[in-house]
Amino acid sequence: MHSNTKLPARTPDLGSQVSPVKLSCPLFPSEQSNNPHPQPPPLMPSVFCLADVCMVPIGTSSASVSDFVALIEAKIRASPLKSTLHSAGTTIEGPWDEVMGLIGEVHEYAHENGIVRIQTDIRVGTRTDKHQTAKDKVDKVEQKIKDMKK
Amino acid sequence: MHSNTKLPARTPDLGSQVSPVKLSCPLFPSEQSNNPHPQPPPLMPSVFCLADVCMVPIGTSSASVSDFVALIEAKIRASPLKSTLHSAGTTIEGPWDEVMGLIGEVHEYAHENGIVRIQTDIRVGTRTDKHQTAKDKVDKVEQKIKDMKK
Amino acid sequence: MHSNTKLPARTPDLGSQVSPVKLSCPLFPSEQSNNPHPQPPPLMPSVFCLADVCMVPIGTSSASVSDFVALIEAKIRASPLKSTLHSAGTTIEGPWDEVMGLIGEVHEYAHENGIVRIQTDIRVGTRTDKHQTAKDKVDKVEQKIKDMKK
Amino acid sequence: MHSNTKLPARTPDLGSQVSPVKLSCPLFPSEQSNNPHPQPPPLMPSVFCLADVCMVPIGTSSASVSDFVALIEAKIRASPLKSTLHSAGTTIEGPWDEVMGLIGEVHEYAHENGIVRIQTDIRVGTRTDKHQTAKDKVDKVEQKIKDMKK
Repeated sequence: MHSNTKLPARTPDLGSQVSPVKLSCPLFPSEQSNNPHPQPPPLMPSVFCLADVCMVPIGTSSASVSDFVALIEAKIRASPLKSTLHSAGTTIEGPWDEVMGLIGEVHEYAHENGIVRIQTDIRVGTRTDKHQTAKDKVDKVEQKIKDMKK
Repeated sequence: MHSNTKLPARTPDLGSQVSPVKLSCPLFPSEQSNNPHPQPPPLMPSVFCLADVCMVPIGTSSASVSDFVALIEAKIRASPLKSTLHSAGTTIEGPWDEVMGLIGEVHEYAHENGIVRIQTDIRVGTRTDKHQTAKDKVDKVEQKIKDMKK
Repeated sequence: MHSNTKLPARTPDLGSQVSPVKLSCPLFPSEQSNNPHPQPPPLMPSVFCLADVCMVPIGTSSASVSDFVALIEAKIRASPLKSTLHSAGTTIEGPWDEVMGLIGEVHEYAHENGIVRIQTDIRVGTRTDKHQTAKDKVDKVEQKIKDMKK
Repeated sequence: MHSNTKLPARTPDLGSQVSPVKLSCPLFPSEQSNNPHPQPPPLMPSVFCLADVCMVPIGTSSASVSDFVALIEAKIRASPLKSTLHSAGTTIEGPWDEVMGLIGEVHEYAHENGIVRIQTDIRVGTRTDKHQTAKDKVDKVEQKIKDMKK
């Protein structure tokens, strides 16, 4: 992780709403022109993660959210990331930047489709001791429950 | 996974909303070197969001997490993003890519500091009708509660 | 709020799942015979809910939580409430008092089994327009995704 | 809510981890079948907990939820339980049964006030090593961050 090199590269105004985010290449070349030594592009974290996502639309006239969920679920399935739908959300697996990028895309996609406000709950886990998929987790628990009964 | 393969799944207008962030280039140096026609950098969403983050370390020998929370809270405060600590988490305000990038950095930072596994709960909201800060939300509710008593 | 006005709203099958919850004052006069002026029994809310639960043990020496999850999952399955395990939690269906009572029992059960600290994330939904099971929700979304492709 | 009448009725030992949890009598048929001496009333778990609650109304025509939050926040503050409002939710402190009972009452209260559907995220923690309030947690972290700078 290069956060140490990234933080100094950020300018305070990045936090504001007005200027678009400039993580790597500024949108306005003029801002670069007088910079003979451009900063290397900062890196987004890419640690593998399992993110379970539950999105709720706010301000829809109907209490039914199945149309909304079908819309965003289709968007999620259109991505190259592995995902699994369950009754309380969708679990997405992959590098942090890809997964969080996708969830953000889905927010923007929903907004573009007329959803004014979205509240999302994300349970995300990362670990360094081993690689584990969503299916691995369930299989391991089911096996241990079987073993308990022996 | 190659972000390049993800781009076609994106809707073009998304590009207008987001700032360019080079996700995978440094991850796959071989793809860049001797590449006369580099791909355009994949884009991360930059919609403004309020993200409330609760991180839990797993596999620490102690039930006390204050050292862990102090470590990550200091990391969060070192960023240019506005944040507010409360007893159940920290609320971070800013563009989606910055906020989620920071949270991912904190995960990697914690791993680098010996935390093997981290489970995080994120409540994140986005809206297109107006800009609202974390303080705006609390002030508005407190005012309405006062008005109810009149 | 008077749960009494709420009870008739219960569907018969829900009623069969519900045992009277007596936090302080017994529902049965015989049990409070020596009380000349019995308080109305405080009732726990019994609105039907879908609660998705993700429990994390804190202070365990190992980063593996499968033993912990197997322990609590077995406890959940021993209850009369319908539940569904997935990689990011377990969805429990039933009256609010039964479901939240069970989750609390599992916390106490885990503590009794040596887990010093537990952090749980619960996504819980209630609605008054119709009764919907966890399976209903998934089936409805999958059907709509199929219809979208036609 | 009858918490006022409920609290005095509680015996100190209920606060311990050992309190027998017998919500669902069907779990213990042997204890009931032809039992001339009725069991003591089933107890809801009463372990002390910190529960951070974020409620979202679904199916409201407006994207603004401040009226809804003010309504439920006032309801929460009317209870004897200590609570703290922040931009992403409200933290409630107390025995499990009281806290979860209150949250369920708020759901029912919101439904009675015309909210058809509610989705809530609850982060709840329990521990057996010590008693810690919401304020304790924040103060401890802030102190450690100060110490880090020395």
